[in-house]
Amino acid sequence: MVSEFQRLRHLVRQRRKLRQVSQSTIALDAMGSDHGPEVLLEGAYLAVCQYPGLKVICTGPRSRLESILRHRGWHHPQLLVEDAPEVVGMHEAPSESLRKTRSSVAVAARLVQEGAANGMVSAGNTGATMATTLLMWRTLPGISRPAISAILPHPERPCVLLDVGANVDCKPRHLLHFAIMGYVYSRYVFGRRHPKVALLSIGEEETKGNELVFAARELIEQTDINFVGNAEGRDLVKGKFDVVVCDGFVGNIVLKFGEAVVEFILESIKREVQKSLVSQLGAVAMMPALRNFKRQVDYAEFGGAPLLGVRGNCIIAHGSSHAKAIKNAIRVAAEMAGAHVNDHIVELMRDNGLLKTPNDRGVKAAVLK
Amino acid sequence: MVSEFQRLRHLVRQRRKLRQVSQSTIALDAMGSDHGPEVLLEGAYLAVCQYPGLKVICTGPRSRLESILRHRGWHHPQLLVEDAPEVVGMHEAPSESLRKTRSSVAVAARLVQEGAANGMVSAGNTGATMATTLLMWRTLPGISRPAISAILPHPERPCVLLDVGANVDCKPRHLLHFAIMGYVYSRYVFGRRHPKVALLSIGEEETKGNELVFAARELIEQTDINFVGNAEGRDLVKGKFDVVVCDGFVGNIVLKFGEAVVEFILESIKREVQKSLVSQLGAVAMMPALRNFKRQVDYAEFGGAPLLGVRGNCIIAHGSSHAKAIKNAIRVAAEMAGAHVNDHIVELMRDNGLLKTPNDRGVKAAVLK
Repeated sequence: MVSEFQRLRHLVRQRRKLRQVSQSTIALDAMGSDHGPEVLLEGAYLAVCQYPGLKVICTGPRSRLESILRHRGWHHPQLLVEDAPEVVGMHEAPSESLRKTRSSVAVAARLVQEGAANGMVSAGNTGATMATTLLMWRTLPGISRPAISAILPHPERPCVLLDVGANVDCKPRHLLHFAIMGYVYSRYVFGRRHPKVALLSIGEEETKGNELVFAARELIEQTDINFVGNAEGRDLVKGKFDVVVCDGFVGNIVLKFGEAVVEFILESIKREVQKSLVSQLGAVAMMPALRNFKRQVDYAEFGGAPLLGVRGNCIIAHGSSHAKAIKNAIRVAAEMAGAHVNDHIVELMRDNGLLKTPNDRGVKAAVLK
Repeated sequence: MVSEFQRLRHLVRQRRKLRQVSQSTIALDAMGSDHGPEVLLEGAYLAVCQYPGLKVICTGPRSRLESILRHRGWHHPQLLVEDAPEVVGMHEAPSESLRKTRSSVAVAARLVQEGAANGMVSAGNTGATMATTLLMWRTLPGISRPAISAILPHPERPCVLLDVGANVDCKPRHLLHFAIMGYVYSRYVFGRRHPKVALLSIGEEETKGNELVFAARELIEQTDINFVGNAEGRDLVKGKFDVVVCDGFVGNIVLKFGEAVVEFILESIKREVQKSLVSQLGAVAMMPALRNFKRQVDYAEFGGAPLLGVRGNCIIAHGSSHAKAIKNAIRVAAEMAGAHVNDHIVELMRDNGLLKTPNDRGVKAAVLK
């Protein structure tokens, strides 16, 4: 039940978010995509058209990007190009990618570092994006491992799942940090008052879990975030929790599996439908309902996965993102910047006594595999 | 493309399986179910009616079971009752359950141990079933941890995923044993010639994984099973592999998540459809196609999860199984017994030098949590 008051609150939040987006400048790594730079530039163009005031700086080989923009007629005073002559391949090792200091991802990260942009978006090589931002921006004080967070779709209550692939072998304190980062993201970007945080495990009971879960639980229980216990695999789609914490190995497998299951089901139904004419007519009649459903679970609506724990705002978009997903990723990067997510993370870390020293400079972590 | 030869082979295999099922006696723990003993007895009755020659011994309080059978008119010369006055609750700790030596699950396991039955089926407390069989039957030579295997549905190529919850903190050698057990199950029960075995990880490349995956990979590569490398989360529904190995923590989360996603999607579509009359008419026309699809992914068709690695054939059925699922679980237990899965596991362990001593007696492992 949505009360009048809740609706009003929602409207106020939407307006504030819109204002924040309109005042932002986002750097877009315009070279990393399975579909080539064109869809990225289209996403950027859609974003600046939809949000007056928003500025997008696309990084990549200047002549190539400008020729696409000219050819497609995507002219907009807020859509700029910054030259980045080098390109990082999708399968290049992160350590290799770091040598290319003038790559599209490095130039985008530098724009953020220098304050010329509030955040960045990349749909390219995830390892390279992580390595670049980590090396250039470092981690937030007290945080030793950044985490990639996926937003699991739900009609009323999207769930932040982290980590989904940045860290495969985690220590309990990493899960503690993920819990804090997820809590802040859910609270300040999704506007949940007091987000429910859970640990992904094999049963709801306290006695269910592996060694990592037991140890992490003890640490998280000592903080003042709203930790509610274990979440099971089935809870991830039920809208019971706002934040679910796990190590990157489990999170990555769950995320990829979930995407594939959705695809598998829709394709199986399609195959069955094609076997009979009556079913086909039925499917046509059901189309609007199916489309509505698809919109609910479409990752493109959420625009990408925030990289949390680094000193900057970075959204990692799916390599196969289409223009709409890129537009949304740019919006989410601007919202993340406007919500001061990183400041709030540091504050919550400090309040819980998790900063090692008052002047913690963050860790320049080893480059990830 | 299915050739004439393949069709013939399939037919021969089906006939052989049917013969095996008809010669079996299966013990059914008739008390463990979310829906009460009635659905279990109905499943048993369906099984003996469908497979002439198959015998099912239902364990539980004699008077209660017999009164249900009498009341429902389920009389069959091959459907017997064995008295087991005690009952294990769904939330009872496994260690507690072991004290009840005359519980329905203990009596069923004893029937197998004494050779009065070839296998057993339980839809009750999984921990209690594992603890009972482990203590009474012990593990197979060389195997230190039994594994619960789930059968992931696929129209052409069902995938054996193990472990899905018996072992949360695994050592590399446990994953090696799971690989061997899964290989044997796929080969001798599903009739795959040379099953493709993979390790569940975060990427297909050899460099992707956590410490456990790297170490297990090294061990599995030394065996002569058909190990093909890493499987990603998305591969689980794509019919690329016959066996996928993981620790029970990951497997359990993936399995529960997958079940919930399927439910979530079908319910979301239903909700959307109900919003318009045209969609509703469309859904009616699509019904046969949707039903076909549901049959493909319905766990009830696969009947339950084989418990591998113990000296006996045990199928763990879903607590919420309906009669059809129980009937299929009984069939699968009989097929597993007829295929001599356990003998083949021991043989493969021996061929790969994995039996500690020629007369390895198996481990009476500590009772699981």
